[in-house]
Amino acid sequence: MAYIPVADGLPGIRGLLAFSPATTKPLCELVEVLLRDSHTLTPAEREMIAAYVSSQNDCFYCQSCHGSTAAQHLGGSDADYALIGEINRNFEAAPISEKMKALLAIAGKVQKSGKQVGPEDVERARRHGATDREIHDTVLIAAAFCMFNRYVDGLGTWQPSDPEVYREIGKQTASLGYAGRDWKKPLETVKASS
Amino acid sequence: MAYIPVADGLPGIRGLLAFSPATTKPLCELVEVLLRDSHTLTPAEREMIAAYVSSQNDCFYCQSCHGSTAAQHLGGSDADYALIGEINRNFEAAPISEKMKALLAIAGKVQKSGKQVGPEDVERARRHGATDREIHDTVLIAAAFCMFNRYVDGLGTWQPSDPEVYREIGKQTASLGYAGRDWKKPLETVKASS
Repeated sequence: MAYIPVADGLPGIRGLLAFSPATTKPLCELVEVLLRDSHTLTPAEREMIAAYVSSQNDCFYCQSCHGSTAAQHLGGSDADYALIGEINRNFEAAPISEKMKALLAIAGKVQKSGKQVGPEDVERARRHGATDREIHDTVLIAAAFCMFNRYVDGLGTWQPSDPEVYREIGKQTASLGYAGRDWKKPLETVKASS
Repeated sequence: MAYIPVADGLPGIRGLLAFSPATTKPLCELVEVLLRDSHTLTPAEREMIAAYVSSQNDCFYCQSCHGSTAAQHLGGSDADYALIGEINRNFEAAPISEKMKALLAIAGKVQKSGKQVGPEDVERARRHGATDREIHDTVLIAAAFCMFNRYVDGLGTWQPSDPEVYREIGKQTASLGYAGRDWKKPLETVKASS
């Protein structure tokens, strides 16, 4: 049970988003711009960064939602879900581009502390073709998920354990995005499984 | 020098806010709501939480700006600045309310990891009169500054060392706030001192 009263059937960040509309608006706009706006990194690649940082922060809810959303953007097959797991366990050995590996390395340092990012990390990313915008957005996505993970875990939210719930959340998020949604609406699958 | 090209005379987060207007809008709206909107915690108290978390993350720019803004909200005297330093060094011994001590203790745990916040931390805050909204906002302010600190340090921004620069930033921020400002405009005092 969360540390503040949130409605039944609203797991993870959803109960918090429903609790506090004034902060929900900019939070959802931020994540919409970062993960879905027109960009040289695909939505799947940006969701991978969000999922990886959330896995490093051990936030079960966020890593499950954003990992599932990344997999859904890729097509939603079991192989897509397996790839996300592989990236979270050891992205350096995963079948992704050298540029993505360099960006995930930067994201992993940001997760620990902004001060850990060095010129050599940025140089590696540039060598593999990363632009200023891609480097900026990778740092900000990683930093933003250090916020979201702490928000979700710091208020002790309820987090479903059923992978099917996260498969459904991933489908909905890949399709509907983040901004302008009604977060007070319970997930049907969560109601059914809880 | 920052890892991405930012304009001269724009220290810390300012160069990044000027670089990326699409993310700047929700970021500034978030911090305006969290630190300045009508609330049972004063703007000074909320800036103290921001400054304390930034000091725990060792982000010189953010702790200096938000510490100075807190001090300016209190009146801007040397004693006000000394109080902020005292809180950052050891808030449990500082002359602040028991409720603020309990909220800063929660913020300090969020800075490490959301998972560190336990029911006993929330219970302590409630015992000293903290409301659901105050607990929610303390967690989200602390989480948000874990983002801002990583954004500022992760992109290797230039951070002035002159305390007078931060005194001026604190005065401007206490007066003008965060949303709707022109972040491309250099600080006069920074130009003069750099």
